[in-house]
Amino acid sequence: MITDLDNFFMDLAIDRAWEYQLLTYPNPAVGAVVVKDGRVLSIQAHQRAGTSHAEVLALIEAFENLTEKRVTIDRFDANEAHKFLLQNAKDIFRECEIFVTLEPCSHIGKTPSCASLIKSLNLKRVVIGSSDPISSHSGGVKILRDSGIRVDIGIRRDACDLLIEPFKIWQNRAFVIFKLAQTLNGRIGGGYISSKESLKIVHQIRAVSKKMLIGGNTVRIDRPTLDCRFIDSNTAPDIFIYSKRDDFDKTIPLFDIKGRSVKVVSDLDDLLSTPSLLLVEGGGEMLNAIRDRIDWLLIFQAPKLSTDELSYNITANLEYIRVKKLQKDLMIWSRFEK
Amino acid sequence: MITDLDNFFMDLAIDRAWEYQLLTYPNPAVGAVVVKDGRVLSIQAHQRAGTSHAEVLALIEAFENLTEKRVTIDRFDANEAHKFLLQNAKDIFRECEIFVTLEPCSHIGKTPSCASLIKSLNLKRVVIGSSDPISSHSGGVKILRDSGIRVDIGIRRDACDLLIEPFKIWQNRAFVIFKLAQTLNGRIGGGYISSKESLKIVHQIRAVSKKMLIGGNTVRIDRPTLDCRFIDSNTAPDIFIYSKRDDFDKTIPLFDIKGRSVKVVSDLDDLLSTPSLLLVEGGGEMLNAIRDRIDWLLIFQAPKLSTDELSYNITANLEYIRVKKLQKDLMIWSRFEK
Repeated sequence: MITDLDNFFMDLAIDRAWEYQLLTYPNPAVGAVVVKDGRVLSIQAHQRAGTSHAEVLALIEAFENLTEKRVTIDRFDANEAHKFLLQNAKDIFRECEIFVTLEPCSHIGKTPSCASLIKSLNLKRVVIGSSDPISSHSGGVKILRDSGIRVDIGIRRDACDLLIEPFKIWQNRAFVIFKLAQTLNGRIGGGYISSKESLKIVHQIRAVSKKMLIGGNTVRIDRPTLDCRFIDSNTAPDIFIYSKRDDFDKTIPLFDIKGRSVKVVSDLDDLLSTPSLLLVEGGGEMLNAIRDRIDWLLIFQAPKLSTDELSYNITANLEYIRVKKLQKDLMIWSRFEK
Repeated sequence: MITDLDNFFMDLAIDRAWEYQLLTYPNPAVGAVVVKDGRVLSIQAHQRAGTSHAEVLALIEAFENLTEKRVTIDRFDANEAHKFLLQNAKDIFRECEIFVTLEPCSHIGKTPSCASLIKSLNLKRVVIGSSDPISSHSGGVKILRDSGIRVDIGIRRDACDLLIEPFKIWQNRAFVIFKLAQTLNGRIGGGYISSKESLKIVHQIRAVSKKMLIGGNTVRIDRPTLDCRFIDSNTAPDIFIYSKRDDFDKTIPLFDIKGRSVKVVSDLDDLLSTPSLLLVEGGGEMLNAIRDRIDWLLIFQAPKLSTDELSYNITANLEYIRVKKLQKDLMIWSRFEK
């Protein structure tokens, strides 16, 4: 029964972490849940690199629930948040457990170490999904155990490992995410298929990845802009156009974005060997051309049946990683079967 | 914060109830969660008509968690389960709340009344999603309130109402569920697309619906059996073949199932006006022919890209109701936009 409950709480942390998958780049997606006497006090996730980690956000929310006071500092400012907790929450978490999808960091980088924070706050128990895959960051478990806190590792390990697969890959080379927008009956192209909500998510990924790869024909036919306007962001990813010929009409909007570089590449080796998050947008042709280089597919499936001519003619077995119903579309994470 | 927690617990009940959507026919899909001091003691759903309701299963599981004793009676036998709880759990639930997606029944039918049971066990609070749409069954809230129990109604009402939409429809006419198996890129037909797990779910629906509608061409081309063999059940639904001509080769396996009736119908009015759960299986042609009569679509989407010739050529807007990742396939509940 205890094990079941551990899984239940870890699943809440995993679900929340998926909401920010890729958006935490170059950090991993991490979720955290604080529990007291079997009662959930908070469910949080790391949202964006350079801001507070999942554990910190979960501890702040749990503090609010335990004290019934609203915390007014900027909780996303990691230094502020750590300082606040160390000053105000020294004794409050003694009976609390924290469930974290990834080993709390021992590393003092842009933010202070979460393992030290949990040690100082003296929680009763720390439950961890995956061990930290970066050896220079690990050591969190040792800090916690040395201080006498009970630590359990490996709860929902497979699901937690899957959550950080992109993170592990982009340590060494480009993590390639291929985004596809389609109807329920598998038709692509032909204007805006996706809902506004889906487009916003895509623009958020564009804003953090800072690098996009797109097929030459898509550029010629769709004449895209490829900016981040749906999230009111002025950033725009650098563009790599995969094409043998460099004969593009420079009045195509994507060429007219300030501060962006556009390169035409006929070989992908350099691009793909560079540690990075690489967003690929395209249709069936592009999917076919680079399928062996794709790590994950992200499919936005609109609730439409369409008779447009564009379908994609590929034979392949995939596996679904995760699916979420947005307000209108389905958001499907998948990958080719190895 | 209280409201958020209410939603959180009700969502657990809703999620569990969806696992048995349609399979409870002719009963509604209902989920229940028992909570004490913010701690989840049980999450259960009604599974099959004639067996214990969701509330009873949730109370039994909560009893086990509170007493740390395993209950050995047949908990799915509603009379046994009610008797057990009344004899053994009179004082144990005083500090407990129960979250139920649908108003507890006041009606004594195949099983005793859940409202009376909760009243006798004297729970602290009952939180309800939807009111009972059948006036002869309602009155549960009155029984509870008259006994002094706090009752809150309408938590996640929209989601709870959606859960019982099939139930409301099959009170008056056939609820028409169209099942479609497709690949990720919208190809249908051509052998077994779905996983074994998906096929089992379909056979479970066949076993409870007891009535299937299928297109004449599917019968001629696929020569199906349409039994429930994947769940080792000897029941097989009666078959209605939608066809203008009655010239079927009687060696097609579906004609050779004992105890089943097979009818060829060219008009659907009688069939659709009869209160029932009607499972339709077919492809694009059948979907097109009866689209205005379909209540919900149930799509099993396999993680495959295929180049088979069969695609479905319909233009329509739908809405997704619910999606679940099975081990391999996606299970997508949807309906045509009104």
